[in-house]
Amino acid sequence: MTSFLKKERDKMISFESDYITGAHPKLLQRLLETNEEALTGYGFDTYCVSAAEKIKAACECPDADVFFLTGGTQTNAIVVTTMLEEYQGVISATTGHIHAHEAAAVEYGSRKILPMPHNQGKLNPASIRTYLEGLYADEAIEHMVYPGMVYISHPTEYGTLYTKQELTELSALCREYKMHLFLDGARLAYGLMSQQTDVTLADIARLCDVFYIGGTKAGALCGEAVVFTHGNAPAHFVNRIKKRGALLAKGRLLGVQFDTLFTDGLYFDIGRHAIDMAEKLEAVFAEKGYAFHIPSPTNQKFVILTKEALERLRQHVAVTVWEWLDENRVVVRLATTWSTREEDIETLKALL
Amino acid sequence: MTSFLKKERDKMISFESDYITGAHPKLLQRLLETNEEALTGYGFDTYCVSAAEKIKAACECPDADVFFLTGGTQTNAIVVTTMLEEYQGVISATTGHIHAHEAAAVEYGSRKILPMPHNQGKLNPASIRTYLEGLYADEAIEHMVYPGMVYISHPTEYGTLYTKQELTELSALCREYKMHLFLDGARLAYGLMSQQTDVTLADIARLCDVFYIGGTKAGALCGEAVVFTHGNAPAHFVNRIKKRGALLAKGRLLGVQFDTLFTDGLYFDIGRHAIDMAEKLEAVFAEKGYAFHIPSPTNQKFVILTKEALERLRQHVAVTVWEWLDENRVVVRLATTWSTREEDIETLKALL
Amino acid sequence: MTSFLKKERDKMISFESDYITGAHPKLLQRLLETNEEALTGYGFDTYCVSAAEKIKAACECPDADVFFLTGGTQTNAIVVTTMLEEYQGVISATTGHIHAHEAAAVEYGSRKILPMPHNQGKLNPASIRTYLEGLYADEAIEHMVYPGMVYISHPTEYGTLYTKQELTELSALCREYKMHLFLDGARLAYGLMSQQTDVTLADIARLCDVFYIGGTKAGALCGEAVVFTHGNAPAHFVNRIKKRGALLAKGRLLGVQFDTLFTDGLYFDIGRHAIDMAEKLEAVFAEKGYAFHIPSPTNQKFVILTKEALERLRQHVAVTVWEWLDENRVVVRLATTWSTREEDIETLKALL
Amino acid sequence: MTSFLKKERDKMISFESDYITGAHPKLLQRLLETNEEALTGYGFDTYCVSAAEKIKAACECPDADVFFLTGGTQTNAIVVTTMLEEYQGVISATTGHIHAHEAAAVEYGSRKILPMPHNQGKLNPASIRTYLEGLYADEAIEHMVYPGMVYISHPTEYGTLYTKQELTELSALCREYKMHLFLDGARLAYGLMSQQTDVTLADIARLCDVFYIGGTKAGALCGEAVVFTHGNAPAHFVNRIKKRGALLAKGRLLGVQFDTLFTDGLYFDIGRHAIDMAEKLEAVFAEKGYAFHIPSPTNQKFVILTKEALERLRQHVAVTVWEWLDENRVVVRLATTWSTREEDIETLKALL
Repeated sequence: MTSFLKKERDKMISFESDYITGAHPKLLQRLLETNEEALTGYGFDTYCVSAAEKIKAACECPDADVFFLTGGTQTNAIVVTTMLEEYQGVISATTGHIHAHEAAAVEYGSRKILPMPHNQGKLNPASIRTYLEGLYADEAIEHMVYPGMVYISHPTEYGTLYTKQELTELSALCREYKMHLFLDGARLAYGLMSQQTDVTLADIARLCDVFYIGGTKAGALCGEAVVFTHGNAPAHFVNRIKKRGALLAKGRLLGVQFDTLFTDGLYFDIGRHAIDMAEKLEAVFAEKGYAFHIPSPTNQKFVILTKEALERLRQHVAVTVWEWLDENRVVVRLATTWSTREEDIETLKALL
Repeated sequence: MTSFLKKERDKMISFESDYITGAHPKLLQRLLETNEEALTGYGFDTYCVSAAEKIKAACECPDADVFFLTGGTQTNAIVVTTMLEEYQGVISATTGHIHAHEAAAVEYGSRKILPMPHNQGKLNPASIRTYLEGLYADEAIEHMVYPGMVYISHPTEYGTLYTKQELTELSALCREYKMHLFLDGARLAYGLMSQQTDVTLADIARLCDVFYIGGTKAGALCGEAVVFTHGNAPAHFVNRIKKRGALLAKGRLLGVQFDTLFTDGLYFDIGRHAIDMAEKLEAVFAEKGYAFHIPSPTNQKFVILTKEALERLRQHVAVTVWEWLDENRVVVRLATTWSTREEDIETLKALL
Repeated sequence: MTSFLKKERDKMISFESDYITGAHPKLLQRLLETNEEALTGYGFDTYCVSAAEKIKAACECPDADVFFLTGGTQTNAIVVTTMLEEYQGVISATTGHIHAHEAAAVEYGSRKILPMPHNQGKLNPASIRTYLEGLYADEAIEHMVYPGMVYISHPTEYGTLYTKQELTELSALCREYKMHLFLDGARLAYGLMSQQTDVTLADIARLCDVFYIGGTKAGALCGEAVVFTHGNAPAHFVNRIKKRGALLAKGRLLGVQFDTLFTDGLYFDIGRHAIDMAEKLEAVFAEKGYAFHIPSPTNQKFVILTKEALERLRQHVAVTVWEWLDENRVVVRLATTWSTREEDIETLKALL
Repeated sequence: MTSFLKKERDKMISFESDYITGAHPKLLQRLLETNEEALTGYGFDTYCVSAAEKIKAACECPDADVFFLTGGTQTNAIVVTTMLEEYQGVISATTGHIHAHEAAAVEYGSRKILPMPHNQGKLNPASIRTYLEGLYADEAIEHMVYPGMVYISHPTEYGTLYTKQELTELSALCREYKMHLFLDGARLAYGLMSQQTDVTLADIARLCDVFYIGGTKAGALCGEAVVFTHGNAPAHFVNRIKKRGALLAKGRLLGVQFDTLFTDGLYFDIGRHAIDMAEKLEAVFAEKGYAFHIPSPTNQKFVILTKEALERLRQHVAVTVWEWLDENRVVVRLATTWSTREEDIETLKALL
């Protein structure tokens, strides 16, 4: 629900998304410092290796396999289509990014998404169980698609978070039914640093079979780190990445960035900064009497505006139209990121 | 035929490929300068727009559609699979990168490659015509694959170049048989700046239906600029890119780099520098009495070494083993790029 | 929801489906009579040609393109994946056969199904319109899937039928939004011969862009006749069929059967017989006080049984378990076909 | 290289292919006799079960998994794409049916064919070994396609046969390199009954990992029996067949036919008859002084004609134009089958 309008707004204050600006300065700095080193390609350079080690340490997951990919849709499609057998499909909330906003990238790899109802972007373990029980009791199951994976996003597309209890239940359900649990962490930094979460990176590594640590939406120019948590990367995974056109020749671009993100806790600092800014943003709207569509504890806030307020605001501030509630009321999404400044929020406040 | 050995050679002198180092410093500089600007995503930012305009001007091709993708295999697969109908296949030399070194990325999109013999990496228009005449005379053609595209690389995988006459013939043949002519320009900078070419960028734009201007191998961190030369981009091309997981959220990464490459002729300067270095490299080997496997007029040189000489050289210099001629003689490839320094060549010379 | 149990029930009375017996005797007779004729293969024989002409006449649709395929899932997958562009998807009821019971055959061809709520298996034009209006107003549409087709089954998987008014509305909606209207007629014979329909074959041909006339479930050994109603068969359709492994060498098997089905109205007679038997079947259950889960006007009847009644019945009669309403109540489906005999119904009656 | 011309030749004498007529009368007879039995669908009926058992016995292969599919291209595509991992490809002769005449059906399933030179349609084990040694020595192998299967046809597309020695070598090579050996037996009946073979059905079952026994070209209306020789059918194979649109609802059509073919040695009788006829056919041409393009020991004969002789012959006899040797000389293929009669050959003789 991002705006693609090619407007002149590129110079405005923007809360349009968490990928409006470039990379956190430390990442650019390290790209500059390492630029002239001659490095092996395709993800085998020293920075990719080092970044993978640091991520494994941060996840407390020494047996993990870590790979770096370029973007979120690419990562989702590769994980889903390489881990599922062809007779399997992936359970996703109807709001799941893979189902709603990825242009059938999973289907491009011949796998089916099995959409399920959601609660503010979250899947409910009990509902999945009911579905599975019905499915496995059906005499015609061989004409259907076997669920082989549960896809969740954390934070979800609505900015909401699973609790440790919920993740634990989902994980147990997946193991019971021999399904992979895959967590899309495009915005994981903001999930981990939320003031309202009890889930740590190590919890995620322990409970999921595969997940990714989003870079693009958390301070990198591009890049997602896929973690197969128990040495369970698909065989010849590099070849499969290549087959999908996703293998960067200069893998260093991803290695250097993730090596920097996981040095001295930068990834978490970026998450914390954006959360702080988001809390201030929420306070500003709340103070001005605006209502929220969904209570999000992460870096995306969903505010209800009148049509007239939207038009006024958009003259100075880029936001994303999320959904029209009726002809006059609209939900807009504002996102913070590494580059969000307190003064931007002050300016916004003055405009409300 | 790149080396993937995860050796300690990352600090050695390297002629291993043209993607061993990062980006040309001017590109990094511009990424830095534009880093905090809030820009629209997915390739609609001002830098992508500007880069596209500059490329259209450099190609003398005002009606072109220009898009930016991340890497060569991705670009090849997307161009081939979006331009071909499903009953069509793509003619390629058996040595063509899409056939030999892209892990079946074209087949991932359900298209067949129709391999043909090559001459030092080049396709021969007369041979293609003979093949087409036979095919269209065959009563069983509806059980076969209709050729819908001719894929050439320029420079080829052997560093060789098509002449303007050859390109003109291929182009005419393609138009006669209603096939797209697609030129893989992963190393186009070195083809254009070769001392032995009569082909200009405008010639390519005029004679081909689609081609790409390689960034990854010519000074960018990543990125290839696809040019559909006569407004012939496939419908909803951005959606198709997304479907293949290839749409960068921060499209600026590609836009800023290509905008810089096509400002003040930097792309051509990078090509010229690498060609100059390659000529010196060739002279060094020739002077020392080494033979060449293929006479390449571009930035890749193919030298014949003894096994013993290879082992000695590899202690200090990273090169790529291209092909063993027999048990004792090996062809190695040395490539130059934007970061190749005269002093490296002097050091190499001393080692020979 | 067919039963796959490899039981000894192959000799019992069976209402398990409409494909339990072989072909209508007249079809076998014609296969026998034509068996030794030397005929051209791949669907170009005289019987395929003749059958196509008869079908065009029966549809009052002289510009139609008619092709013969082997089975329903194959036909659905081929029609959907050849008619949709790759940026498009197909709207289907969640109960639609392509979504629920075809093992991701559409996704195998890289197309996405866009599932929508249903009313007794039927899509609602107004709901589709609401969905489309929301979709086309969404700024992120280029990241989604464009609806390019509406898939309906008639009769539906629940045995229900669209009215002429509903079909007309769907057709108008499809034309307005440039979507193909595709009618899955696996059981079309029973839809056309229902006592409660106002829809003719000519209506369907006029209102749909493509549909198929089911043979497998209406008296053929195998075979479905696809009708592209206005000369709109995808280019090189035979090649596409071949690419999907669906081109029969002895196309006569389909040609002779359909030629016979469309001679002297046999197809309609088969439909009428099964409808007559189904009406009797319904009357028997009604008379005995059983309730129906869904009021079906075609050849499938959905009866509610207790668990105990099911177990008793299944000792003598093969039926399909459709759905458990609770632990003790189950919906079973009984289907009639060309070979259903009145005496089977009498026997069933005695067992109730 | 079959002719698709929709000529009036449907009534002529035809040696055009081995699928010009319908089914062997005994098959039709059994279809008739079993027609009214109520049977389970999808290949689980008693005839499919019985046919599978008879085939396992004939193959002396008690651990085999046997499935029935409709046609050759379908079978090839399903076997190749279900047995190969996605990082693997299939080695085939350039003349292999999957490479040359199946409209990219293998590529439709995203797998690459690795074409190799042939000798009269046959692959050479030594050449494959050389290729494999080079490939596995290549540092860039992860960018290529791993050979995971060797595809051979027996008889080949040229009617030639592998010897037991050659099959044994291929089998050993495949096991050494962990590749499946897949034998396309579309015309297996004619290979087994050739007067010049030392290969038995049991040999094939012992030496191959998977093969199929062709029905379509050996007296069935349609149908191929796939034999996974050591319990190595891909998991959920029925689901995968369904996903590819290849699961017949009335599986009996295939079961009854194969049950009959493997009762009292009918399959072998059919093969023997066609071989006898082919030998007579060859004798007729030889006697009349015609030369043969390829010495085929099976049911296809490849005769060299002048253009004038072709035109004359085609007025009365349907043959397939195989290849033009020059402007005046053409290779035509004549095939025999279950329905070829001695009197047809006499008629032909009179016409020469």
